[in-house]
Amino acid sequence: MNFTSDNATGAHPAILNAIGVANGGSVGAYGGDALSRSASDKIAATFERNGDEAAVFLLGTGTAANALALAALTPPYGAVYCHRDAHINTDECGAPEMFTGGAKLIALDGAHGKIAPATLQSVLSQAGHGVHRVTPRVLSLTQSSEAGTVYTPDEIGTLADIAHQHGLAVHMDGARFANAVAALNCSPAELSWKAGVDVLCFGASKNGALAAEALIVFAKADPDDIAFRRKRAGHLFSKMRFIAAQFDAYLEDGLWLANARHANAAARRLADALDEMDGVRLAHPVQANEIFIHLPASMVTRLEADGAAFYRWAQIPGEETVLIRLVTAFNTPDDDIDALIAIARAEAAKS
Amino acid sequence: MNFTSDNATGAHPAILNAIGVANGGSVGAYGGDALSRSASDKIAATFERNGDEAAVFLLGTGTAANALALAALTPPYGAVYCHRDAHINTDECGAPEMFTGGAKLIALDGAHGKIAPATLQSVLSQAGHGVHRVTPRVLSLTQSSEAGTVYTPDEIGTLADIAHQHGLAVHMDGARFANAVAALNCSPAELSWKAGVDVLCFGASKNGALAAEALIVFAKADPDDIAFRRKRAGHLFSKMRFIAAQFDAYLEDGLWLANARHANAAARRLADALDEMDGVRLAHPVQANEIFIHLPASMVTRLEADGAAFYRWAQIPGEETVLIRLVTAFNTPDDDIDALIAIARAEAAKS
Amino acid sequence: MNFTSDNATGAHPAILNAIGVANGGSVGAYGGDALSRSASDKIAATFERNGDEAAVFLLGTGTAANALALAALTPPYGAVYCHRDAHINTDECGAPEMFTGGAKLIALDGAHGKIAPATLQSVLSQAGHGVHRVTPRVLSLTQSSEAGTVYTPDEIGTLADIAHQHGLAVHMDGARFANAVAALNCSPAELSWKAGVDVLCFGASKNGALAAEALIVFAKADPDDIAFRRKRAGHLFSKMRFIAAQFDAYLEDGLWLANARHANAAARRLADALDEMDGVRLAHPVQANEIFIHLPASMVTRLEADGAAFYRWAQIPGEETVLIRLVTAFNTPDDDIDALIAIARAEAAKS
Amino acid sequence: MNFTSDNATGAHPAILNAIGVANGGSVGAYGGDALSRSASDKIAATFERNGDEAAVFLLGTGTAANALALAALTPPYGAVYCHRDAHINTDECGAPEMFTGGAKLIALDGAHGKIAPATLQSVLSQAGHGVHRVTPRVLSLTQSSEAGTVYTPDEIGTLADIAHQHGLAVHMDGARFANAVAALNCSPAELSWKAGVDVLCFGASKNGALAAEALIVFAKADPDDIAFRRKRAGHLFSKMRFIAAQFDAYLEDGLWLANARHANAAARRLADALDEMDGVRLAHPVQANEIFIHLPASMVTRLEADGAAFYRWAQIPGEETVLIRLVTAFNTPDDDIDALIAIARAEAAKS
Repeated sequence: MNFTSDNATGAHPAILNAIGVANGGSVGAYGGDALSRSASDKIAATFERNGDEAAVFLLGTGTAANALALAALTPPYGAVYCHRDAHINTDECGAPEMFTGGAKLIALDGAHGKIAPATLQSVLSQAGHGVHRVTPRVLSLTQSSEAGTVYTPDEIGTLADIAHQHGLAVHMDGARFANAVAALNCSPAELSWKAGVDVLCFGASKNGALAAEALIVFAKADPDDIAFRRKRAGHLFSKMRFIAAQFDAYLEDGLWLANARHANAAARRLADALDEMDGVRLAHPVQANEIFIHLPASMVTRLEADGAAFYRWAQIPGEETVLIRLVTAFNTPDDDIDALIAIARAEAAKS
Repeated sequence: MNFTSDNATGAHPAILNAIGVANGGSVGAYGGDALSRSASDKIAATFERNGDEAAVFLLGTGTAANALALAALTPPYGAVYCHRDAHINTDECGAPEMFTGGAKLIALDGAHGKIAPATLQSVLSQAGHGVHRVTPRVLSLTQSSEAGTVYTPDEIGTLADIAHQHGLAVHMDGARFANAVAALNCSPAELSWKAGVDVLCFGASKNGALAAEALIVFAKADPDDIAFRRKRAGHLFSKMRFIAAQFDAYLEDGLWLANARHANAAARRLADALDEMDGVRLAHPVQANEIFIHLPASMVTRLEADGAAFYRWAQIPGEETVLIRLVTAFNTPDDDIDALIAIARAEAAKS
Repeated sequence: MNFTSDNATGAHPAILNAIGVANGGSVGAYGGDALSRSASDKIAATFERNGDEAAVFLLGTGTAANALALAALTPPYGAVYCHRDAHINTDECGAPEMFTGGAKLIALDGAHGKIAPATLQSVLSQAGHGVHRVTPRVLSLTQSSEAGTVYTPDEIGTLADIAHQHGLAVHMDGARFANAVAALNCSPAELSWKAGVDVLCFGASKNGALAAEALIVFAKADPDDIAFRRKRAGHLFSKMRFIAAQFDAYLEDGLWLANARHANAAARRLADALDEMDGVRLAHPVQANEIFIHLPASMVTRLEADGAAFYRWAQIPGEETVLIRLVTAFNTPDDDIDALIAIARAEAAKS
Repeated sequence: MNFTSDNATGAHPAILNAIGVANGGSVGAYGGDALSRSASDKIAATFERNGDEAAVFLLGTGTAANALALAALTPPYGAVYCHRDAHINTDECGAPEMFTGGAKLIALDGAHGKIAPATLQSVLSQAGHGVHRVTPRVLSLTQSSEAGTVYTPDEIGTLADIAHQHGLAVHMDGARFANAVAALNCSPAELSWKAGVDVLCFGASKNGALAAEALIVFAKADPDDIAFRRKRAGHLFSKMRFIAAQFDAYLEDGLWLANARHANAAARRLADALDEMDGVRLAHPVQANEIFIHLPASMVTRLEADGAAFYRWAQIPGEETVLIRLVTAFNTPDDDIDALIAIARAEAAKS
């Protein structure tokens, strides 16, 4: 019963198998092989773009993807606006600052992990200060968000419009983009470039791959610039075929969406069951594969004692509840969901 | 017949298999799993060190390993001394400069890809210039070298002594360290920390792994510093077990040395055969798995026409020969060696 | 009637004169002259320190001083805690990020431009997150603050204790340090190292110099490191004597404190007069040489029309008042104060 | 008798006086004053350009000017080609690397401090290597050179043509540009943009100013980019009028050229007198205000004993001579020249 994160589990067998299949023979290194090219095209096609309309860069980590994307979108003296809890702001140890040469992340508050249009409008209208202040360059959105919620295409469009009107580019951290696509009734294109996203970091590692992320440029960034920066950051893999193979399998026959749907459904079922128990309260709507929920302290202790692994997210002093995070994955067993619910119910019944 | 590089080929089946074996179940992310720990210990043990004596960082690319190592050994205003042809100087697109915050690489000339002690002594004795000039901090050696030669333990020791006397740390780019160990009658420890190497980048990617490198700190660098820098550079893999698994298999039953011996022997046999042909001249002694050799232009053309892939390294104007590079790998087929020799002989017989 | 800033005015005649006096003859460049040494000693002595106890670096701008100080106190993956309105956070175009190699400034809220101990304690107690998050390294205080208020020695001591307990160094942006010393009944030492300040940026440019700032290391930073960083940042002046001369005169016979007292008194008199008018409200206590005050919009318009220059700081939508900033300087004429008061009174009398 | 450098002396009285004149009244800070504007226009006009044709940035040090210029001309993954002895390569402690975010300086050999066209052509034709190597972006020339020689307009034009054909921008480090203009029978424009220089760092500090340098953009760099970078580097002076005043006086009535002519003539006279003595040999032609000359060791010792200050540049082991550097300045007294010659003659007569 491991609900710590969607990176605690391994890889999907089909993806693992694809790596083995890709192993034969000598091919061009550093992405100069047929599989790297075809996988990149496949990624673009998933977004209804061809190779001229979208530049695709294969990478090994989401932090690398985000940091490279931002470096391509802002000079060192630029400002990147993001949610206060955004991964780029809190969990990448300053990678965006390193890759951009010291650009500044401006953290915005917002309910349920999402930036509100009024907030963005307000900060951007007050941002100018000549050369004395970093200059606004990028809006970064996280989809699905760090609170387990999703932005609809309309919400993205509204935010992107504000950003573009102020001359900013729009970056999307899509480490859990698949979960958002699975959650909303729309296409990958509708959730990205059609809604105004200029550069998307399209993650696979959290959804069944071993280590595979794609940086996709729809607009505003210079692919040549990114190509040099990727190499310079040590993120150009010599045996690129092994990342390409992962994406090839990931996007085959809708595996990526099936994986995400499984994770989302598991979260949904778990959240619904917990939410109806006494003393339990959801901190955020559960729209993807993450649950943030206040549980009675005794229930948390019981779950841990019985072998459930998850993060204690916060404990508000003086309260009897603990905020925990539960993350489901592409292969979370139904039995684990059932087991966790059963333990929680038994504990709830005591009180 | 692909002799372009040792990264044009795939992975060893045993290493691939280990990845599959590692796939089961939920484990700690970011290296917090048992396999990552045991593989790190296994790496240290290969160098006759335990976990307290050597800090091991698992990485995905050699460029990342080198750049992180250098960043841990020099401030931004430091100087790194390396051979003019060192990978860090010519093939990493400035990664060392990026990771160190702009340290300066000082390129030294040296026959056959190696730095001579007298050269190092001379430049270090003239290096001081107060705050006006970058201050000497690191000596970086490449083993085996970019010219396909190797440093003996004594040679390393002499250079390391000079470096240490001047307050420099010693970094070794060991992307092809295995080939050097296989070539010399000595242990990994004798070729590294026992000879004065402070930080070693121990490569596996070019010798049978998919993407696996280890940064090993024997001395002088702060492991905590590297831990933060690795994350910040986007090089901390969430599913670390998949890199650990590669090393686990790589070091099992001497696979790594068997692989390197195969590559070295292939290079040896190929070089010997070519070298005795008319009009052929070796540019450097062949001591590992790389051959730099001047061939008649007609022979080069013939080889290419018959399907041999390799790099034309340089063509000296007015000469009839072309300098080419041939690289062998852990799995270079004997047939490919035979075939290339046969083509060359046939061409040589014509003239 | 220029109240835009204390850098809109020129230099004190005694300081200007000292530059002329320093002009004769050939001397060592880059600070290797007697005047640079004696002025540095004089600065240290002002803080009851000798040359062994405090390292002094002469600089030309406050931004350079702050950024160099921070670079000496944090690695690139460190966090610097400062007030949201701190100059380093809002008015240096990311200089701290540039000089530190991308460290992260964490903006804290706080009434009247000051950080409250409880706020600092709270954020530091929640700061840890392994390698995933930047690691706390520096607390930066501004004295006097951006709101024109001052920290007492006790307040500094309390904050510094919290910082030190968490392993942070304490930096003080003292662009207007003189105004704070003049405002409080205490010594420079009591307001700096005796209260726990490790590195002080001691400004003179805003208080009568042309361009002169001193970075003073009391503890925790390595002077050699700063020496290299100063040169590398282009902030080591060849004819250093001309900065030294400014400090020499600045600290002679208490000129610096006389200047600051004049500015403070001018602000005091101006604030008191305005504050008693109808519809006027101070935004912050006036403790140094800056006034933040809400005036009726009509009064602001009148002042501008009659030739008073100042910044409109903020206008709260729907309110009839405008928040303006008035800054006095070492040489603000009494007549200007009288004139501004008279205009405001006349306008106030109308309503 | 101080011949150590042209920054060992003070400022020209007219320039000092101009600072005093500029001191009155309140003006816009950070360059927003009339004098800063008019001085910038005057600088542009000196180069036969108006404000639309050339962007001028006032700075305090030559290192800042060079580093900012390079940062505006190359991305972090770019290469800057310069002479091995260029100030940016050997005497700025890596400032170009810091400001550019880690670009790489490629040092070229060349007789008498100058880059030969054939050398540049050769390295640029071999420079390409895809994303693996830093990409050529800037040619940096030093005028007058570090060897005291000058490039003619034709020589600059030839080098600039090669650079431009390969897509590089041309930067000129003109810390001693005035000495070159004074030495050659041509205009400032002919020695800069008309010959293909895109960005010039036009120095005054070594030629009579206290601390004043101008970065002039003729082409290829974005002035807005530089404006942000200047502030971010801490090089935007609040009381800019004091730098502007220096340039205003420097360019008035040809003071700058008169100063340079004096220095050049002093060097000429000194070099001619020394050169005809026995055992003396010039290392480089003396074309500006620097002399590199081999003197008998006994003569060097005698000069030092008798109070002459200069740098011992190099001593070739086994030789009886020492290479010294003598630098003259705008105000080097004729008596000092006479005195040094007399001592040398007396010593020469002994042998």
